[in-house]
Amino acid sequence: MASMLLSRQLTCCLQQNSRLLVFGHRYISQAAAKIDVDFDYDGPLMKTEVPGPRSRELMKKLNGIQNAEAVHFFCNYEESRGNYLVDVDGNRMLDLYSQISSIPIGYSHPSLIKLLQQPQNLSTFINRPALGILPPENFTEKLKESLLSVAPKGLSQVITMSCGSCSNENAFKTIFMWYRNKERGHNNVTKEELESCMINQPPGCPDYAMLSFMGGFHGRTLGCLATTHSKAIHKLDIPSLDWPIAPFPRLKYPLEDFVKENQQEEARCLEEVEDLIVKYRKKKKIVAGIIVEPIQSEGGDNHASDDFFRKLRDIARKHGCAFLVDEVQTGGGCTGKFWAHEHWGLDDPADVVTFSKKMMTGGFFHKEEFRPNAPYRIFNTWLGDPSKNLMLAEVIKVIKTEDLLNNATHAGKALLTGLLDLQARYPHLISRVRGRGTFCSFDTPNDATRNKLITIARNKGVVLGGCGDRSIRFRPTLIFKDHHAHLFLNIFSDILANFK
Amino acid sequence: MASMLLSRQLTCCLQQNSRLLVFGHRYISQAAAKIDVDFDYDGPLMKTEVPGPRSRELMKKLNGIQNAEAVHFFCNYEESRGNYLVDVDGNRMLDLYSQISSIPIGYSHPSLIKLLQQPQNLSTFINRPALGILPPENFTEKLKESLLSVAPKGLSQVITMSCGSCSNENAFKTIFMWYRNKERGHNNVTKEELESCMINQPPGCPDYAMLSFMGGFHGRTLGCLATTHSKAIHKLDIPSLDWPIAPFPRLKYPLEDFVKENQQEEARCLEEVEDLIVKYRKKKKIVAGIIVEPIQSEGGDNHASDDFFRKLRDIARKHGCAFLVDEVQTGGGCTGKFWAHEHWGLDDPADVVTFSKKMMTGGFFHKEEFRPNAPYRIFNTWLGDPSKNLMLAEVIKVIKTEDLLNNATHAGKALLTGLLDLQARYPHLISRVRGRGTFCSFDTPNDATRNKLITIARNKGVVLGGCGDRSIRFRPTLIFKDHHAHLFLNIFSDILANFK
Repeated sequence: MASMLLSRQLTCCLQQNSRLLVFGHRYISQAAAKIDVDFDYDGPLMKTEVPGPRSRELMKKLNGIQNAEAVHFFCNYEESRGNYLVDVDGNRMLDLYSQISSIPIGYSHPSLIKLLQQPQNLSTFINRPALGILPPENFTEKLKESLLSVAPKGLSQVITMSCGSCSNENAFKTIFMWYRNKERGHNNVTKEELESCMINQPPGCPDYAMLSFMGGFHGRTLGCLATTHSKAIHKLDIPSLDWPIAPFPRLKYPLEDFVKENQQEEARCLEEVEDLIVKYRKKKKIVAGIIVEPIQSEGGDNHASDDFFRKLRDIARKHGCAFLVDEVQTGGGCTGKFWAHEHWGLDDPADVVTFSKKMMTGGFFHKEEFRPNAPYRIFNTWLGDPSKNLMLAEVIKVIKTEDLLNNATHAGKALLTGLLDLQARYPHLISRVRGRGTFCSFDTPNDATRNKLITIARNKGVVLGGCGDRSIRFRPTLIFKDHHAHLFLNIFSDILANFK
Repeated sequence: MASMLLSRQLTCCLQQNSRLLVFGHRYISQAAAKIDVDFDYDGPLMKTEVPGPRSRELMKKLNGIQNAEAVHFFCNYEESRGNYLVDVDGNRMLDLYSQISSIPIGYSHPSLIKLLQQPQNLSTFINRPALGILPPENFTEKLKESLLSVAPKGLSQVITMSCGSCSNENAFKTIFMWYRNKERGHNNVTKEELESCMINQPPGCPDYAMLSFMGGFHGRTLGCLATTHSKAIHKLDIPSLDWPIAPFPRLKYPLEDFVKENQQEEARCLEEVEDLIVKYRKKKKIVAGIIVEPIQSEGGDNHASDDFFRKLRDIARKHGCAFLVDEVQTGGGCTGKFWAHEHWGLDDPADVVTFSKKMMTGGFFHKEEFRPNAPYRIFNTWLGDPSKNLMLAEVIKVIKTEDLLNNATHAGKALLTGLLDLQARYPHLISRVRGRGTFCSFDTPNDATRNKLITIARNKGVVLGGCGDRSIRFRPTLIFKDHHAHLFLNIFSDILANFK
């Protein structure tokens, strides 16, 4: 199958690119009929192992000023295009990890280059305002063009933030304020509350909690970290909060063979959620909200059924808790819908939805009911960055024009089908193949095998990412097409065939 | 005095600007001998009250999608230059608040415009990497050109973050990890620690604390907020941590009349710091670090003597606590030194110094001893933004070339002298005049008077900011010159003379 796919891919490439420009070792595809791939390269091109000598030299230098042990390699972003990441040793790799899922429409997209070249946009990049007090003239307009044009149903309000952690932190605060307002019956705040909050004590700082799931990841600042339970290294040595943690379903694959077991597993987890809410309330620690990822990403790409999430939403409503969906990694279109939770078909929308990464700016949507009742309650100096809103508006235009949500569904299907085929052929290496859109993953037998596969793939020109304790995750850009899927599958098929 | 200052200022302006371009209502000063003011306007120009009709219309629109009650007015950043902020109604104001102290070298600085226009820099703005794993080729070089070229003495390590809150949150984590490593004698981590941290419990999540000061402000995410004690509205309804809070000296002014009282006040606060460390250790809550601002900014511009901070540093060392100096608002040169804490003359440097705002990127410096002992411990997707490092390198070049630290000392002296003069003439309106460099402030009799003065000043073309419960703070850019100080003093003198 592998060689068949390869020849199909090559034919397709040659058809798309009427002319090829030979430029040193690099092939730059010229303007073709399809505008969406005209800035992409036509395949990986490897010159050294990765990290190569130049990367290793730079790693040593960086390590002098900060711990650089997590660095994979150094990049040449000027030369990186579309789905291809070029490193400082001249290696060109098909990037299926896209900067931990944070490059929406590929590297060096012509629309973004054009945006930066327009003189009227310069000011937005160099004059960063304090958005909460002195916004630029086009602030509301740009939010409408960008974030609000893709707002989840029922969520009319939006606040921008600088990163994913700040988004979740401020979403928590919004939920706590909403809950307290509800609890005090919208009466005035007491003197005791105002005084006690200044010294971190109740009733001003009430003993509220967010319920989270084992395996979840919601960021690394102290509040977020109390809801993150993916890896010990994230949490070790950092003081935390006694907030309830429910089990997240551990589904068995293939799903069609374990329908009953998986239903029971999900029911068990949901029951535990309700028990925890009740148990914590008994010890006077009130669960004000529930936070969940549509697919637990850092924790190992753990999925649950749409039904699980609908029932979880019902439990939140039943107990008066806010329902917060963290779409920092799943949002932006990679699952085939703009927001992964839109697959669930909720009757009652989520209360708060957080985002970052592919959205280029952090922030969150919320229902009007959750609107802060006074200024400066959800606030900081920058409150995001209008230059990111400007770029996001352009990105969303490209997503719509090029129909990239349908592309994610389509390309994801090609990827998933290929992975299932590889799983059938190499069951000792690949298991639990799963995915929604291009948001795919599979398990390997163990951590060592996973890391070895990632390293080999990288040296063959494919950048992959790990998650959980032995999974490999796919987080390509939204311009990842069927032919990229086939290209990857061919390379990976060879790797598996030769794996020792 | 006022009119004398005004005429001196006008003469100076006319001398500097060989030609004036008349352009509608706007005067743009042309290239003059001094490059550092050639893009500045020559004075405020008011057309409407502020907020004007266009601002009010836009506020209404923004309020439909988020609480916009904190918005002062909407800005035209394209037309804003140097020390002057232009609003959407065409009003041009001398900006002494500079986006809550976050514009280092004025609006639309020619060096930054040039930077944005260079084609080789485009990629940095549109291809935002995950810096911790895939940094760009020039990452270390740009950090050396920018942050490390101004690193506080003894702090060789630097990590960038997206905002001030994330900087403090990650500084806390760095301190907690350092403390725990010290405590476990660099032995291996136990299984119990690894397991308990996943459920937010000790010993994996130890009961460590940061000691902070009443009146301090260190950000608004949950960890930061537990050390912030400036205003109730920041903290109300948000769960917190039982961390110790010491009193911050409340100095009496003029300082020379209250030498003994102020010494006693500082000694009292320092004694309380030691008592709290001991008291919290007794209840098994260990103070791993002390966080302090060189000048408490949001809390009301509260100063303490250099001697107070030297003694505080000694207490931290004595008790094995890390000493964290939060320079988010004071850093970047406005006090006349690049970091305000450099005025203290510490024998032993601070352990960790955080920054953001004027530095364009968040982050922190730390001693080598505080370096995380493994990758991914201080980590997030973006870890800052190389486009901000690029701009910061340029900003620091301008600060050095134009000698802007000395300028801050000089212009600050002009401002402070003028404020002291106004205090002498209007003691019923102005008291406790204080400052270091241009980081000046004074008290008004009460909140209502303060807000009225700020509103009147704005309508006369001067943007001021408040802090604490009745202070007005000056946070001009680093290109704020003597003549801007005189311009402000003249306008404000007239306001005070007519204040009812």
